[in-house]
Amino acid sequence: MPMPSEPHLALTYGEPAGIGPDLCLLLARQPLPCRLTVLGDPEVLRRRARQRGLKLAIHEGEAGGGHHPGRLQVLPRAAAAPVMPGRLNPANARHVLDLIETAVRGCLEGRFDALVTAPVHKGVINEAGIPFSGHTEFIAALTGGHPVMLLATTLKDSGRPLRVALATTHLPLRDVPQAITSERLRRVLTVLHHDLRSRFGIQSPQITVLGLNPHAGEGGHLGREETEIIGPLLAELRGQGLSLTGPLPADTAFLPERLARSDAFLAMYHDQGLPVLKFAGFGRAVNITLGLPVIRTSVDHGTALEKAGSSDIDCGSLEQAVLSAIDLARHAHPA
Amino acid sequence: MPMPSEPHLALTYGEPAGIGPDLCLLLARQPLPCRLTVLGDPEVLRRRARQRGLKLAIHEGEAGGGHHPGRLQVLPRAAAAPVMPGRLNPANARHVLDLIETAVRGCLEGRFDALVTAPVHKGVINEAGIPFSGHTEFIAALTGGHPVMLLATTLKDSGRPLRVALATTHLPLRDVPQAITSERLRRVLTVLHHDLRSRFGIQSPQITVLGLNPHAGEGGHLGREETEIIGPLLAELRGQGLSLTGPLPADTAFLPERLARSDAFLAMYHDQGLPVLKFAGFGRAVNITLGLPVIRTSVDHGTALEKAGSSDIDCGSLEQAVLSAIDLARHAHPA
Repeated sequence: MPMPSEPHLALTYGEPAGIGPDLCLLLARQPLPCRLTVLGDPEVLRRRARQRGLKLAIHEGEAGGGHHPGRLQVLPRAAAAPVMPGRLNPANARHVLDLIETAVRGCLEGRFDALVTAPVHKGVINEAGIPFSGHTEFIAALTGGHPVMLLATTLKDSGRPLRVALATTHLPLRDVPQAITSERLRRVLTVLHHDLRSRFGIQSPQITVLGLNPHAGEGGHLGREETEIIGPLLAELRGQGLSLTGPLPADTAFLPERLARSDAFLAMYHDQGLPVLKFAGFGRAVNITLGLPVIRTSVDHGTALEKAGSSDIDCGSLEQAVLSAIDLARHAHPA
Repeated sequence: MPMPSEPHLALTYGEPAGIGPDLCLLLARQPLPCRLTVLGDPEVLRRRARQRGLKLAIHEGEAGGGHHPGRLQVLPRAAAAPVMPGRLNPANARHVLDLIETAVRGCLEGRFDALVTAPVHKGVINEAGIPFSGHTEFIAALTGGHPVMLLATTLKDSGRPLRVALATTHLPLRDVPQAITSERLRRVLTVLHHDLRSRFGIQSPQITVLGLNPHAGEGGHLGREETEIIGPLLAELRGQGLSLTGPLPADTAFLPERLARSDAFLAMYHDQGLPVLKFAGFGRAVNITLGLPVIRTSVDHGTALEKAGSSDIDCGSLEQAVLSAIDLARHAHPA
């Protein structure tokens, strides 16, 4: 499907008592090569702008054209209860989810080219009696598909991208080993390979796969998942044409020689891959959801309730999420 | 015990078929603020120097004074069998261990101020019929004490040190959770705190402790080790005067603000702490063994058999290991 030169992004402001509304305001002051429609309560945004002394023109309705710095276009959805910065209120949980649902529906209908999400607060949504295990799972339930979490940043020295996908995400560490199955790895690697091609425009993606155990099991002396599960599955997928290296020891996988040859890494679990990614990205990493029929990116941080409405807020991660969404949308719908 | 201004270092050349002898030759060409005695077979070193076309004066006997670039002082111990670069020979396993034993004995007797080790090959020692689980364990069996593995490097941007200690080291991932006990953490943190003071000269060390689970368990939703074991143990040790932060999520622990406030991090397991450390150190990390009555540092890489005798060898990690050992020895025995 061809797309006008500037993709249309839906940006949900997330938990209104957190820094999400602040981030949207700060972002809107910058030039951005897209149409940008924020989903949220315009009154919350106006009050937050006044509180911070930020001068912005806040207009209601979807963005009709390219973004103008200093102008914020809001698709208005009213919050159910007054919003106090820093104070969670379960009465607004439904409002937060409604923004995501509206944006996802707009993506599926083709009105938006991509979705960017500011952080939500899992706890307060559950407190409101709505079962909610995470943004990504919620979106996947609306769209179908098998989500894969990828974090991306840019290396300061080389300017090269660093991308780390996760085979498992939010599991207690003791549940990780049994979750590393051939079925899961096959699904995740298939999605990763496919989306690196279709969304990142990488014709022949080089994927480096980490082992589960230290030293990638050291030939079976430090665990057998590499020889029994990961190794054979990689051999099978190589037979289908995927370019896969590994399983490699995680501690030396991120040295310069290997970084230069990897379009993406697959880590077996959260804390194996994300500390190095976030260190390299200095808080400017982007969370990208692969495997869904919609394009979705997100900031890599939380609601930061204590900072809401303050001047100590950096919208760098949201800016990166928006720029990533623009890139992904362009690859998905080349002009 | 006062020490002459330049500490006396014992450097074992490790597996002679690997790059250890090459590293010793390359290192000896540089100026170093220490007395340096290499332990190895002088004939192996002479042959390797000829093979590489390196001009060095190789003298037998302990170093009598400060190091002269281009001169290598060897405490001679004969290999049992001829050494071919790249070819492991179990007949020399005893030789490799003899070097370590001699160096450790020399440290315990006060003839050396610190031990620096080049890499050994676990497999070939076991093949020779000698049970051997690792350098560190072998040294600890000779000296007594409770070894704690610390990796250290220097951050390029700030020049600040980054130090990561490990609560568990070479365990399959599925065995990690049950190894995280109060007893182990109490022992490791006590050693870490003590040695940061005595060996690094940090009067009031600030230690950041990571959680075991992603998001440090997210208040019990992603695992209970933080609330049941790690948290209470940190509270107990704070009561004894230790400055401990945590348990913190590993993925955001290495962001600049926290880095600037941490003298050391304690990771719960190998691949949680070392990928970021080695990425930050670009292959110039140093492995330091705490908790023993001798000072010991090591390179952070393996024997690299395929490179032995070639010109594609960088002694940067060994140089860092030597400089660290000099610093540690100076703090242990202020002039």
